[in-house]
Amino acid sequence: MDARTGLPVVGMVGAGQLSRMTHQAAIALGQSLRVLADSADDGAALVAHDVVVGDYHELADLQAFAVGCDVVTWDHEHVPNEHIVALAAAGVTVHPTAEALHFAQDKAAMRRRLGELGIACPSWVDLDAADDPATALDEFATRVGWPIVLKATRGGYDGKGVWVVAHALAAAELLASGTPLLAEELVPIRRELAADVARSPFGQGAVWPVVETVQRDGICVEVIAPAPDLSDERADEAQGIALRLAAELGVTGVLAVELFETTDGRLLVNELAMRPHNSAHWTIEGARTSQFEQHLRAVLDYPLGITTLTAPVVVMANLLAGPDDVEPKGIDERVHHFMANWPDVKLHLYGKGFRPGRKVGHVTALGTDLAEVRARATAAAHYLMNGEPQR
Amino acid sequence: MDARTGLPVVGMVGAGQLSRMTHQAAIALGQSLRVLADSADDGAALVAHDVVVGDYHELADLQAFAVGCDVVTWDHEHVPNEHIVALAAAGVTVHPTAEALHFAQDKAAMRRRLGELGIACPSWVDLDAADDPATALDEFATRVGWPIVLKATRGGYDGKGVWVVAHALAAAELLASGTPLLAEELVPIRRELAADVARSPFGQGAVWPVVETVQRDGICVEVIAPAPDLSDERADEAQGIALRLAAELGVTGVLAVELFETTDGRLLVNELAMRPHNSAHWTIEGARTSQFEQHLRAVLDYPLGITTLTAPVVVMANLLAGPDDVEPKGIDERVHHFMANWPDVKLHLYGKGFRPGRKVGHVTALGTDLAEVRARATAAAHYLMNGEPQR
Repeated sequence: MDARTGLPVVGMVGAGQLSRMTHQAAIALGQSLRVLADSADDGAALVAHDVVVGDYHELADLQAFAVGCDVVTWDHEHVPNEHIVALAAAGVTVHPTAEALHFAQDKAAMRRRLGELGIACPSWVDLDAADDPATALDEFATRVGWPIVLKATRGGYDGKGVWVVAHALAAAELLASGTPLLAEELVPIRRELAADVARSPFGQGAVWPVVETVQRDGICVEVIAPAPDLSDERADEAQGIALRLAAELGVTGVLAVELFETTDGRLLVNELAMRPHNSAHWTIEGARTSQFEQHLRAVLDYPLGITTLTAPVVVMANLLAGPDDVEPKGIDERVHHFMANWPDVKLHLYGKGFRPGRKVGHVTALGTDLAEVRARATAAAHYLMNGEPQR
Repeated sequence: MDARTGLPVVGMVGAGQLSRMTHQAAIALGQSLRVLADSADDGAALVAHDVVVGDYHELADLQAFAVGCDVVTWDHEHVPNEHIVALAAAGVTVHPTAEALHFAQDKAAMRRRLGELGIACPSWVDLDAADDPATALDEFATRVGWPIVLKATRGGYDGKGVWVVAHALAAAELLASGTPLLAEELVPIRRELAADVARSPFGQGAVWPVVETVQRDGICVEVIAPAPDLSDERADEAQGIALRLAAELGVTGVLAVELFETTDGRLLVNELAMRPHNSAHWTIEGARTSQFEQHLRAVLDYPLGITTLTAPVVVMANLLAGPDDVEPKGIDERVHHFMANWPDVKLHLYGKGFRPGRKVGHVTALGTDLAEVRARATAAAHYLMNGEPQR
């Protein structure tokens, strides 16, 4: 509790854009987010008042950071689970807990749990648990057919740690690398969806409308809320999966459930994230309660806010630095022209250094006509990252 | 320009709630607001990364603060005008300028200028400029009738520096105090309105819908957007006055024009503020571009954002600390109950210490039915400040 304000102190481990935007939400709630940054130049470290620079791999750094925090939460999944256990054992309130986070950190454990719960995901096999991974992969591929998706069991994100392999030979190098892997069928999908929910320690749940996430090269480039042409039944199913998972896994805070909608009409769980997530950045302007405020409410065991949309259609487009964007030179001029051309598109820049393909911000457009709103968001994002109109 | 982000650095003198909320807006634009705080415990100083503690009365402090700022702006009108002149002469970009701010700092100068522009305000007389203030007041009162409003020419806000006096005897003590005063007719008003606009150095103007500001004891307690039952003609007139004043006075940034709507249907200018203003706090959730983002855009000479409403009715209620609220004790528990009861009302706490009557935050409700939205906002505000339901 901050004695000056009488309000709680939330500590967030990691100081990327999720912390940065959570700090914005914290300010409205009378709080000041404490962030554990890798570097003083991290996006959130540039804007938060209460910045600790330290190494989240080191328990001592985490312990020092936690002193004075009413609750500690995470902007990524990379904190060693045993450190989270140790913090909790020492009396630190952590949300989500190590038990829940385990299922966001370990893709094999998550899939195993989905199986126990009877929640569908693509067919998979844990190669790391197999006596002979090459043989296990071969048997699996014989059953579901090549190509196969290989995923690093731990540590992947934004297309990293995911490989589509067309035959056994292509998998050999990965299998030999020692990286714990699982193999997954390459599901024929119509599109990707995300069901984002929040759950408080008390057990209250809140859900935003299901969204469509548009991917390019394994990276989300666009999110459309609500997902177009999604039947109420399918939306209910997706939200039901997310709320059930949040409860069954004991998630506290925001849970993002990434889903495949298959060409034959099934919903399969792809991945989970237990933190604010790119698929819900649109909620800042697009919903009455943003995922960042909701995450704070949830980890503080405050009652959750309403998730009503503020417009019929909301589209978020990620700002991915262009191939020549090795430094932010010229971005201010682009911002100027962006504002002139799109006075109705909202900008979010993360304070990150540019390097090709890096996610350095996002824009959000709101409106009524899906095609118009999408065109506006993507054109604005393209201009900001390329300095020239979209063709 | 911040070399790490390639984006400009805005410095705001003063670290109250206006700076605090401007910092929130700055974060989205990829910036980090630099604030000059009286104390490290100021509301914005608790949440901004780039905090300088100093005295805005001291030119040296202002000069040191300005180093590295692309533009310096203000969260209050109390910076000595000659210091702003000196900063500008030294090459610092300041918005609004000393020339414009003069009219927000000096109520007599403002009224004189209104007269020159043919923009109506209540009848007034500059007692400070009179050879014999007591006689001047007496003559004025004979013309417009007692009671009379006396106003300190400089430094008043939130009802401070304003006195309604019923007869000459009651004015004697004030006249003798040496405070520069003006006298104004007590206009029979139907209500108070505010026309909030922004203007960039380039000259672009943007206007939010005219709002009604509900006052109690000279302090704004509630703002209703748009002002109910305001004809399009009257709204156009109010917005026209504000845009014209912004241009004529050379205002850069947000300009709030407080207006009286008289019982006989005239609009009279009451006061001006050249900064984000309480009458436009509702824009954070209620308009596509908030006044805080717009102020940053304007002072940076960025193109301005659209000001469309996000709901048919938006009501902001101020949180004024109750008579027993000498410290924030118990506020966290109230926040908990507030969130449970009003999941659809947005909270803004300023991180300020509580003392009776002090403005410590605000809430915003959005909806379609005026009576319902007002009831929701005021009930939530009452509960937060009193810890018990409104009766």
